[in-house]
Amino acid sequence: MHTSTVAYDEIPTPALVVDGGIARRNIERLAAYTVSRGIQLRPHTKTHKSQLIAQLQRAAGASGLTVAKVGEAEQMAEVCDDILMAYPAVDPARCDRLARLALTKTVRVAIDSSYALEALAAAAERAGSTIGLLVELDVGMGRTGVASPDAALKLARLVAARKSGVRLDGILCYPGQVWEPADLQEAPLSKIAALLQETIDLWAKDGLKASIVSGGSTPTAYQSHLVPTWTEVRPGTYVYNDMNTVRGGYCTLDDCAARIVCTVISNAVDGQVVIDGGTKTFTSDLCIPARDTGHGLIVEYPDAKITRLSEEHGQVDVTGCEHRPKIGERVSVIPNHICPCVNLQDRFWWLEQDVARPVQVDARGKLS
Amino acid sequence: MHTSTVAYDEIPTPALVVDGGIARRNIERLAAYTVSRGIQLRPHTKTHKSQLIAQLQRAAGASGLTVAKVGEAEQMAEVCDDILMAYPAVDPARCDRLARLALTKTVRVAIDSSYALEALAAAAERAGSTIGLLVELDVGMGRTGVASPDAALKLARLVAARKSGVRLDGILCYPGQVWEPADLQEAPLSKIAALLQETIDLWAKDGLKASIVSGGSTPTAYQSHLVPTWTEVRPGTYVYNDMNTVRGGYCTLDDCAARIVCTVISNAVDGQVVIDGGTKTFTSDLCIPARDTGHGLIVEYPDAKITRLSEEHGQVDVTGCEHRPKIGERVSVIPNHICPCVNLQDRFWWLEQDVARPVQVDARGKLS
Repeated sequence: MHTSTVAYDEIPTPALVVDGGIARRNIERLAAYTVSRGIQLRPHTKTHKSQLIAQLQRAAGASGLTVAKVGEAEQMAEVCDDILMAYPAVDPARCDRLARLALTKTVRVAIDSSYALEALAAAAERAGSTIGLLVELDVGMGRTGVASPDAALKLARLVAARKSGVRLDGILCYPGQVWEPADLQEAPLSKIAALLQETIDLWAKDGLKASIVSGGSTPTAYQSHLVPTWTEVRPGTYVYNDMNTVRGGYCTLDDCAARIVCTVISNAVDGQVVIDGGTKTFTSDLCIPARDTGHGLIVEYPDAKITRLSEEHGQVDVTGCEHRPKIGERVSVIPNHICPCVNLQDRFWWLEQDVARPVQVDARGKLS
Repeated sequence: MHTSTVAYDEIPTPALVVDGGIARRNIERLAAYTVSRGIQLRPHTKTHKSQLIAQLQRAAGASGLTVAKVGEAEQMAEVCDDILMAYPAVDPARCDRLARLALTKTVRVAIDSSYALEALAAAAERAGSTIGLLVELDVGMGRTGVASPDAALKLARLVAARKSGVRLDGILCYPGQVWEPADLQEAPLSKIAALLQETIDLWAKDGLKASIVSGGSTPTAYQSHLVPTWTEVRPGTYVYNDMNTVRGGYCTLDDCAARIVCTVISNAVDGQVVIDGGTKTFTSDLCIPARDTGHGLIVEYPDAKITRLSEEHGQVDVTGCEHRPKIGERVSVIPNHICPCVNLQDRFWWLEQDVARPVQVDARGKLS
């Protein structure tokens, strides 16, 4: 629907603009690291929700793609034959859609309950397909995943005992609690490695093989070698980065590929300007490693602070700025957390050589 | 694209479900109050972003509609001839679109700068239309709006001096800081009334008339008579309500028309279940009057607490529940803040007599 390119200054704001050069560099750098360490890279597409970006990741060597929802799986399956849903499907609607997708693609799902196993197996049997299952082990985040290597063995036995519809492929974990600086990650990652090794050994005694051991995140991306059992990692944010990854010390501002370009719409209140992006553009996510730093960084005015968001307003304290942004001026904001921002935009603007091309956010709003 | 009705249990989750009976009652109740007080009602459509709901509000007597963005204005102009954009447009793209809309519809815009005045007047002159302007006065929120009655007079004079493109129609304010319980609103609303009266009087001395004095919000909706100068009010949330308005004391749980129906997808962690909605469904907005109450209320399990959201996961502490939700079970959540949740859904389900009909969220994602 939008195919024509525009000059940067003509993009309607608030707009998600992606610097093509930086995104390509982020993609290639992590691909090179994982190749050098013999780890497969299966990027989580929740961050970009874009077939274009997924194709760049594949071209750089990604072994497959990760998704959270079935709607994302269906979108990404159009450009990739190997999809992992790192999210348990338990309801018949989701399971049936996955089972149909598995007729023509490699589809794997992470599960942490016998309920999910039965639901997926039944759906695959109805469809006449096979879904690969990874048993999710909780390695400290306390969100999903079975609680112990013993529990993982118990669930793996149930999967292996199922004669049709599903296949036991391995183990999945998400080290979402590890936000230490990279040089302090050896201790938490060693603990995770030990839990995984214990699980693998238990399975082996039972004759069960974990061909895939899937882990990883953006904060731990370049320390993935500290968990030698990981056969693959699933970082998402690394392609764009954001103030979470900058302030966490995992990248620099120069590595931030995605910005939200906003217009200053008001300067009526003393010491403040207002930009045309609020929670419906940025969400209200605070910066995880630095919760008091406001709602993102204005690149052109690093001394300004986005102190408060309403739905469509961003209030910016400019009292610390030597020069202040003028009304009508455009500014670009690196958000605290890029992933939910992307999901609020129908399209992003792919910027190369000062020309911006609109690209659909293919999997936006795929909640099911 | 989705026209068929489904049974409630077949709606894919997470889904926004609106109880038609409650929404109609909320619409009619506030319409009756405003009629009884001789105040016009111009609902803010940011909450529902739906032409269907807007038409119900119009049928109940709403004098026009309020929007925040031009994309919303264009959508709502398809079902209403009288649109107020309670948001300053300053960039040429927005101003041109508004000016074109003003060729066939009554279009008003609230401004707080001479920059916005010039931008809108120039666009209207280019289009050959006239845009009605309301001067926004800050009445204590400190977000947008000129700082004083004197400043409002100064800007009104500039508007009046413009011979074409714009028309001075009145004053706008937003009492967004008033979150006191209804019975404690007399003091803050009296202060606002005094500021507005002072502005009206200053204008009158100058021969300038404020035909419209626009104010209001959902928390103050049923106290609008305490600001006798308001000719119209612009509440948005009242149509659906949410935990903000429940815990603020402005309505009861029975007045909450909108719920997010979720499925329990995991119970692997002791004392916890996980639902299939996170920040990409609920946003991370906390409850304004009760920030420590978690991320919304699970109607069927009021003793559960949604303690943490990831993008697609909602972690629910169920240790306080006598009976716990089972994996695969559906639960319905009243979110803290319904407006940004609606904006995350392509459609909502209009539920009447146990039958759910999908309805498009027409102005979803209209950020410009």
